[in-house]
Amino acid sequence: MELLKKYNLALSEELNNTLQIKEPEQLYEPIQYIVNIGGKRLRPILTLLTCDFFDVDFKKAMPAALAVELFHNFSLIHDDIMDNAPLRRGKETVHEKWDINTGILSGDAMLILAYQLFEQYEAPLFRELAKLFSKTAMEVCEGQQYDVDFEDRDNVTIAEYIKMIDYKTAVLLGAAMKMGAIVAGASESCKENMYRFGRNLGIAFQLQDDYLDVFGDPESFGKQVGGDIIENKKTFLYLTALNESEALQAEELEHLYTINPKDPSDKIKAVTRIFNESGAAEKTQAEISKYTKKANEVLGRVDISEEKRTALREFGEWLMKRTF
Amino acid sequence: MELLKKYNLALSEELNNTLQIKEPEQLYEPIQYIVNIGGKRLRPILTLLTCDFFDVDFKKAMPAALAVELFHNFSLIHDDIMDNAPLRRGKETVHEKWDINTGILSGDAMLILAYQLFEQYEAPLFRELAKLFSKTAMEVCEGQQYDVDFEDRDNVTIAEYIKMIDYKTAVLLGAAMKMGAIVAGASESCKENMYRFGRNLGIAFQLQDDYLDVFGDPESFGKQVGGDIIENKKTFLYLTALNESEALQAEELEHLYTINPKDPSDKIKAVTRIFNESGAAEKTQAEISKYTKKANEVLGRVDISEEKRTALREFGEWLMKRTF
Repeated sequence: MELLKKYNLALSEELNNTLQIKEPEQLYEPIQYIVNIGGKRLRPILTLLTCDFFDVDFKKAMPAALAVELFHNFSLIHDDIMDNAPLRRGKETVHEKWDINTGILSGDAMLILAYQLFEQYEAPLFRELAKLFSKTAMEVCEGQQYDVDFEDRDNVTIAEYIKMIDYKTAVLLGAAMKMGAIVAGASESCKENMYRFGRNLGIAFQLQDDYLDVFGDPESFGKQVGGDIIENKKTFLYLTALNESEALQAEELEHLYTINPKDPSDKIKAVTRIFNESGAAEKTQAEISKYTKKANEVLGRVDISEEKRTALREFGEWLMKRTF
Repeated sequence: MELLKKYNLALSEELNNTLQIKEPEQLYEPIQYIVNIGGKRLRPILTLLTCDFFDVDFKKAMPAALAVELFHNFSLIHDDIMDNAPLRRGKETVHEKWDINTGILSGDAMLILAYQLFEQYEAPLFRELAKLFSKTAMEVCEGQQYDVDFEDRDNVTIAEYIKMIDYKTAVLLGAAMKMGAIVAGASESCKENMYRFGRNLGIAFQLQDDYLDVFGDPESFGKQVGGDIIENKKTFLYLTALNESEALQAEELEHLYTINPKDPSDKIKAVTRIFNESGAAEKTQAEISKYTKKANEVLGRVDISEEKRTALREFGEWLMKRTF
């Protein structure tokens, strides 16, 4: 997609301009490091694209797009500390390359820098953007907390799981698009519908990620297939399989989620079989379709040309085929 | 001081209203915990007091005051993780009572909540307050980074040290007062002078804290006298003593700052003697006077009644006699 290349190039340039390394270097170096280790910049692209599609120069949305990207990277740095993750995008995580304290402090600074980017807008726009940003950021924190809580809970419901991925992942996609619409001066209903489009797409996207983690093509998936099973992650597939299985099979699945064999291939095979036999795989596909359909429904209500609507729909489909 | 009691009561009430515990509890409980373990609420009091002294109802400054207090407590949670501190205000630190991950995430949420408090103001005020807040917050992060860096450096200059305490402590006092003036609609020059008053007072206050750490009355100081010496902290006293001592004595001081005896009383005595003999104690007192005088000078330029100016000066003096 030609458009995306254009946005990506502009984003790289502006990120470099914004994130010059200053004193104290130990604070600013990790910030530059994390944004330059090859993220796909999906979220800021959504902001630029939305602004563009409301017929306003996408450059006007650049500060908001950068704020979204900095926020996303802030959350990655802090989440990686919490998850004790050694790698991010195939490179060392910040707390691994430096230390935990550096990760905490540089992350904090990134969150503040994100707010500062909105200062490039006049007062009414500044207030509207910062307000949406704060609301979204709080939800992302809540989503992360739910994710942590779920690890120790045996009674997570599917509704709770959907709420968790909605907060942890989807609201930021919705907000990224809404910010583009806000900067473009779109109507209230257009802003709201773009938000809902992004948010529904975000849930579909995360469910797809869960699905591909088990059923994806190892060549194209980018992460280790079966990773969630190895880590005993209570995903939509797992929770649905538990609900839909006969008592015996449910017990087997629960047992499989208590073991951590050195060679996990038998465990992955057994769990995958249950995901298939219980109908959980199919149900997950249906759930993905449900949210994709919802997204396209609200898109139908946005006041843009049919041509752009089609482009957005195609963008959504393209998104669902990738993993970020 | 009657006024301070009034502010403190109003602050407690509003903090309780603002920080209701919601789901997920693990995120919100630590926030309520840290603000309720007996901080003196110096910073938000400065905001309310300044607004009041410009003849505007102090309640109008309440959201800004709460934002300042939340930010201060956010920085305490994250700093305590970085310093590996078990106690804060005599109680368990957040990461000790819960865990490091909880401290990181609850701290993040507090920083965002602080920004959300400004949403209670109309767009122009919101923008002006949030902008000052972000600038100050970045400086506090930089100050914390300098403080961390100084631990591993042997060539810290006195100017660098002053910059560190300015950023880590003083700018927030200045910003707290300026926010009160902003909310009150004071003139640009009044806002700026209140900022400089608070900032100079803040530096004096921190130098006084360094001084009392060595020469304070153990009864009234609240922390362990000699604590900085035990931890080999490169304070103003230490850096000045190094500069002012003969070669032999400087060497002795440097040596004393490499040892960590089980019973530190002899070390404390020896270092204290050098602080006295080198003239560092006297020089520190002179530096405190210098910044107090600077603070009172700029106060002279603020357009308020002589009566209120006197009250502010007395407030500053009262402040210097306490430790927070």
